[in-house]
Amino acid sequence: MTYTLEVCVDSVASALAAKRGGADRLELCADLIIGGTTPSLALVRQVKAETGLPVRALLRPRFGDFCYDRYELAQMAETAAALVQAGVDGIVTGVLTPEGELDVDALRPIYAAARAAAKAAGRPVVCTLHRAFDVCKDPFAALEAAKALNLGTILTSGQAASAPAGAPLLRRLVEAAGPDLEILVGAGVTPANLPALAAETGAHAFHMSGKQVLDSRMTFRREGVPMGLPGFSEFEVWQTNEETIRAARRVLNEL
Amino acid sequence: MTYTLEVCVDSVASALAAKRGGADRLELCADLIIGGTTPSLALVRQVKAETGLPVRALLRPRFGDFCYDRYELAQMAETAAALVQAGVDGIVTGVLTPEGELDVDALRPIYAAARAAAKAAGRPVVCTLHRAFDVCKDPFAALEAAKALNLGTILTSGQAASAPAGAPLLRRLVEAAGPDLEILVGAGVTPANLPALAAETGAHAFHMSGKQVLDSRMTFRREGVPMGLPGFSEFEVWQTNEETIRAARRVLNEL
Repeated sequence: MTYTLEVCVDSVASALAAKRGGADRLELCADLIIGGTTPSLALVRQVKAETGLPVRALLRPRFGDFCYDRYELAQMAETAAALVQAGVDGIVTGVLTPEGELDVDALRPIYAAARAAAKAAGRPVVCTLHRAFDVCKDPFAALEAAKALNLGTILTSGQAASAPAGAPLLRRLVEAAGPDLEILVGAGVTPANLPALAAETGAHAFHMSGKQVLDSRMTFRREGVPMGLPGFSEFEVWQTNEETIRAARRVLNEL
Repeated sequence: MTYTLEVCVDSVASALAAKRGGADRLELCADLIIGGTTPSLALVRQVKAETGLPVRALLRPRFGDFCYDRYELAQMAETAAALVQAGVDGIVTGVLTPEGELDVDALRPIYAAARAAAKAAGRPVVCTLHRAFDVCKDPFAALEAAKALNLGTILTSGQAASAPAGAPLLRRLVEAAGPDLEILVGAGVTPANLPALAAETGAHAFHMSGKQVLDSRMTFRREGVPMGLPGFSEFEVWQTNEETIRAARRVLNEL
C-alpha cells in the first residue's frame, strides 16, 4: 500500500528540510504559529523553485473563525487565482456559515477562480477543504457538499483536537469519502502514532509539520519590548525537523 | 500645529472605520494579533479602492525576530515591489543583524526595489523603518543609518513596551531626527494619553490601532478543536473602533 506524506511548512528552510526527509508534497502556509495563513506569492515561487515538490497553498486570510465578510471572500478568490499563477498545484481553503454549515455559495467562486487560473496555465489544480471541516456542524453533510464541489481532498482531524482522538470519526469519513476524495489526516500526527492512525482510520494520506523550535540567531536581545502576542517568544523560530519527517516516511514505507 | 494620525489596520472593515474616524493615513498589515505581517496584494487593492487614503504597507514576512535568512530577504525585496505596484504609498520594514544593529546591507535592496517600482509607476514612495528600531542596540546609530538610507519615517515607542514609557527617549529622537525624518510615535497610544505624549515627546505623528474586540458572527461553535495558538480565542475579531479614532482626531485637532 502506498501512503502519502504531506508536510506543512511556512518557510523555504522548512520546505527543504521536508524534502530531504522524504515528503511527497507540501502544504505551504505563512505563520504556522497561528495555525497558518495564506503564504506570499514570493514564498510560493521560492518553494516551487527550490524543492520542485507538489505544493498546495493554504488560503486563509486571517487568524480566527472561518466566517468571512464580502471583502475577505473577494480577496480569497483573487488570491486563489494568483497562487495558481505563481505555481501552486492546489489550494486549501474553507468557509463556514454562522450556523456551522459549509458555505458552498461562498466557496464556489473561490474554487472556480483557482480552476480557471489552472486551465489558463494548462495545469491541473487540486482543491482541498481544510480543517474548517473540523469545526462544522455535520461532517457527513459537509463531506457530501465537498463531493458536489468536486474537491480532491479534505484535511481533517475527525473533528477532534488531534487526529488520534478523532480516529473513530476519521474511519467513518474514509468509508464515506470513497476512492475519489482523499481524507488527509492531520493535527498531532507523529512518527510514533502513524501506525495506529493508519490501522484505525484506513486513511492513506497523512499531514504533519514535524515542528522543532529553534533559538533565534539574535545574540543581542532587548527584552520587554514585545511586538505583539505577549506570551510567545519572538526569539523562537519554528522549523520542520528533517529527521522527524524521515522517521515518518520510514514508518509509512513499512506499513 | 498640524498632527498626523496614522491608524494601523488589518482589514477593509478596520480601514473604513479608521477613515470615518478621521485617520490621515493607514498602516496596512495582516494579522495584528501577532504584531502584524505583510498584507496580501488583494487586501492592498481593496483598501486603496475603498478608502482612497494614503496606505503604507507593513513588510514583515513572519512573526518573530527581525533577523531574516537569504530567502526571506529575497521575498521582502520582491514583495516590496509588488506592494508598490498594487498601489501602496509607502513600505514599512526593518532588518537587524544578530548583534542588534540595523542591517543596512540587507535593507538597501529592499528599499531600492520599492523605489524602483514607484519610479516605474510615476509615484512617490515613503520608506519607513518599523519597530525593529525599538529592539536594536543603539537607537542613535540606527537613526543616523536611517537618515543615510533616506528614510521618511521611523515608527517607534522609544525602545519601551509602550510609547508613554518611552517618552524621554522619544523626545531625544525627535530632536536628533530633524525636520526631514518623521518620528512616528506608536505602541499603546490612546486618545487619553495623546496630549501628554505630544507634550513630552515633541512629536507630530502618532500611530494607533484603536482596537476593539468583537464577537465572531459564528452562532455554531465547536469548542475544543483549536486551529493553532492555544489561549487565543478563534471566536474574537479584532477591529478598529471608529469612535476611538474620532476621539484621537479630536484631541490632536485641539492641541
